[in-house]
Amino acid sequence: MNIVDTYKEDFLAYLNSAIQVKEPKNLYEPIYYILQIGGKRLRPILTLITCDILNGNIKKAYDAALAVEVFHNFTLIHDDIMDSAPIRRGKETVHIKWDINTGILSGDAMMILAYQCFENYEPFNYKKLLKLFNQTALEVCEGQQLDVDFEIRNDVTIAEYVKMITYKTSVLVAAAMKMGAIIAEVNDEEADKIYDFGLNLGIAFQLQDDYLDTFGDAATFGKQIGGDIIENKKTFLYLKAIETSNEKDKKSLLDFYKTKITNPNKVSEVTALFKKNNIDKLTVQEIEFYTNKAFEILETLSISKEKKEILRNFGKSLMKRTL
Amino acid sequence: MNIVDTYKEDFLAYLNSAIQVKEPKNLYEPIYYILQIGGKRLRPILTLITCDILNGNIKKAYDAALAVEVFHNFTLIHDDIMDSAPIRRGKETVHIKWDINTGILSGDAMMILAYQCFENYEPFNYKKLLKLFNQTALEVCEGQQLDVDFEIRNDVTIAEYVKMITYKTSVLVAAAMKMGAIIAEVNDEEADKIYDFGLNLGIAFQLQDDYLDTFGDAATFGKQIGGDIIENKKTFLYLKAIETSNEKDKKSLLDFYKTKITNPNKVSEVTALFKKNNIDKLTVQEIEFYTNKAFEILETLSISKEKKEILRNFGKSLMKRTL
Repeated sequence: MNIVDTYKEDFLAYLNSAIQVKEPKNLYEPIYYILQIGGKRLRPILTLITCDILNGNIKKAYDAALAVEVFHNFTLIHDDIMDSAPIRRGKETVHIKWDINTGILSGDAMMILAYQCFENYEPFNYKKLLKLFNQTALEVCEGQQLDVDFEIRNDVTIAEYVKMITYKTSVLVAAAMKMGAIIAEVNDEEADKIYDFGLNLGIAFQLQDDYLDTFGDAATFGKQIGGDIIENKKTFLYLKAIETSNEKDKKSLLDFYKTKITNPNKVSEVTALFKKNNIDKLTVQEIEFYTNKAFEILETLSISKEKKEILRNFGKSLMKRTL
Repeated sequence: MNIVDTYKEDFLAYLNSAIQVKEPKNLYEPIYYILQIGGKRLRPILTLITCDILNGNIKKAYDAALAVEVFHNFTLIHDDIMDSAPIRRGKETVHIKWDINTGILSGDAMMILAYQCFENYEPFNYKKLLKLFNQTALEVCEGQQLDVDFEIRNDVTIAEYVKMITYKTSVLVAAAMKMGAIIAEVNDEEADKIYDFGLNLGIAFQLQDDYLDTFGDAATFGKQIGGDIIENKKTFLYLKAIETSNEKDKKSLLDFYKTKITNPNKVSEVTALFKKNNIDKLTVQEIEFYTNKAFEILETLSISKEKKEILRNFGKSLMKRTL
């Protein structure tokens, strides 16, 4: 069993002991359900691994790790309602298995439960963790709003897009790591570096998600290839193509993304347009830019070579999607 | 201007300075909207008045007062979605003026903003306030769930009903007051008494709401008289009537509450059935029971006679609905 699996197993044992169905059942069962249907548990593992590597008491990191995971799953319940998504992790979403009102209210309760997870920390660290959590949670909502806003806008820039994915997903990855650093009681400067490492790695990861959705291997990606193209999603690939391609290709792309009717050749033709304009290579460059930025920050941390190696390998494994 | 109006005016000035629309506008405008369309501001006034009476620094109480008001308004946005309510305080509800997704997401952001309001408190009081806030917020969700559950249950007891209204509304009134006590740095025992005072007054207030909906004066109540009867709401009046009336009257009531079609005489006939079974008097007795309990607790507080008088008068004015 590799080191990440060990953290994951320990975290799941903690989650199972901490999250129980209580009364009223209709409020707590959906919470238990979403937390039990799986997921990579990437964020809580990052809290644990960071605390451990910075010589913190890992036992103290479980509550923060749980808070992050509970909060993340709350956002999934509400996002799935907003996206009318029927399936999550191969199972029915909460608002389908129950109903929309249950999804709203159980989600609300879940956010409060996430806040409650921190109550074992001493006042000073408690406040530090909560301030970070508040800011992060608000940015996640802002990111979700930007995502909604971008759907009907036709002038979204790459910079705006990167801000959106940063808020929607990377800040929580970064905060998960910084919480581990706060619990390990490193100084603020070091904790901020950990945050920036997580932030850049999170952006790289999210851009890779865009890349793999079009250029990935169906067997290992786990989702249908071309899904973003079918849904006319304005991903990094699309925005980069609009920005860099000639007028003719740009017009073809705009036409493809105007129609809701699925042209059976749409995925292959748009993919070909992307390739013709080097969007695959340009996206890989961008992913490498953020990955390298993360690894450069890692180098400046005041920890041993061996420990940097662990974080670097973890980052690399993430970018290889072997987690 | 009476003393309550002064607190209210000061609170509104603080609210206006603290809550501003920022980007993304589609997230923050609904928050600004719901906070600006009015309301009695009962809960924040209670935080301020309690802190003031207990010789606390009232300037320190504004943030907690704001947190309570922001949280309360967040619950209104999400409850209005769940109830499909089109109107709130005479204006369109958020999910009607915008859409359901906006209501969900702005509500979520609002809950986080409520948590952020506490960030100016020192770590020790910060944690004390937050623990109370977490517990209260979770109970409010549980109360809302019980309310939903009760709609399809036919065996709800009076005790369960009182628990539901306690969680759904009274705990936030109680917590609003206890926050004022925490900020005034009174001892825990005194703060708990303040909580119990608020809790019992809150229950009395809510039971009075049930009473006035049927037996109130349309001119002063502000809502349509008989609304609860038309909607078949299982209020204290209904549950008490089911519990105490003879089989014939009970059957008539059950029949009235089975039908969704509005019989033009339904309100007057159900009201007559309530009166025949003394439900008006029994409800007034119950309201007096909780009001007296609140005032008995008030007597045990370690504050001057004059200050007890202020709280008693405030309680009385609430129960007279002159606020």
